[in-house]
Amino acid sequence: MKRIILGVDPGFTATGFSILRLEKGQTTLLAFGALPLSSSLPMEARLALFYTFFNEKIATFSVTEVALETPFMGKNAQNFLKLGYLRGILLLLSHQHGCVVREFTPRQVKLAVTGFGGAEKDQVMRTVLRLFPRLGVPNRYDITDAIAVSLCALWDQSALYKSFL
Amino acid sequence: MKRIILGVDPGFTATGFSILRLEKGQTTLLAFGALPLSSSLPMEARLALFYTFFNEKIATFSVTEVALETPFMGKNAQNFLKLGYLRGILLLLSHQHGCVVREFTPRQVKLAVTGFGGAEKDQVMRTVLRLFPRLGVPNRYDITDAIAVSLCALWDQSALYKSFL
Repeated sequence: MKRIILGVDPGFTATGFSILRLEKGQTTLLAFGALPLSSSLPMEARLALFYTFFNEKIATFSVTEVALETPFMGKNAQNFLKLGYLRGILLLLSHQHGCVVREFTPRQVKLAVTGFGGAEKDQVMRTVLRLFPRLGVPNRYDITDAIAVSLCALWDQSALYKSFL
Repeated sequence: MKRIILGVDPGFTATGFSILRLEKGQTTLLAFGALPLSSSLPMEARLALFYTFFNEKIATFSVTEVALETPFMGKNAQNFLKLGYLRGILLLLSHQHGCVVREFTPRQVKLAVTGFGGAEKDQVMRTVLRLFPRLGVPNRYDITDAIAVSLCALWDQSALYKSFL
């Protein structure tokens, strides 16, 4: 069975993403990067950019699973609402492309990647960079967090056919 | 100038909507109703239903403006995030169809409809039902709130070409 996992760390400053393929026991990081959404654009235009970008990525790489981290509210409720805009669009796209959606808590992601659920963000980044040393993943939490959540989905097969949302 | 305003009161139990037309000084309530989203469906499927429903409404009625109320967080942060899913999809659709998005605070809506910004929900409903007596609008806040926000947009032309989001 071939699995293509899109991991996303959504955010308005920049959304990190990672696309992992598992085929015949071989794992390959097909793509990774970040999509910035200029705050000078109206919200509707930013969301349309986001939709178009991930619509294209999911189609091009024939993504089968979309992996996200469970969000927790920070200090700003309006930011939490706006994070909902991005997540809503990702869930819509997942349905439109028939992808399985999988959600993991930050603790599950840290545990999967570092072996310790209470790991610091930096330790997650170092582990990810060690796993993919040749790719020269930039020193950015948004990208390494997206890779981490896609790895967590790759390794956790328990919930493959369930949606947690 | 012809204006077709879609007012929406998004929610997962049911989303109220209202479509108003202003043409040659005549205001007509073209459509109103509620879209329930069954909680037995996965979130992705509910969002896809929501997208398809409003995509069709906006196209069929050639909507030019989408009117929403500024949301405030209640007791449950996760519900606020999920409200973001629905709003994100409405903003995406607005951009895809070239509609102007307009947002009003609950106070602005109440003031526009009842003449008093601190009005109770019930007073808003009674005013809306009095304005459209022949339509037999059901006794439901989701629908009367959607009609109220579309009326607020109709009467407030100050921000017609601005997006507040």
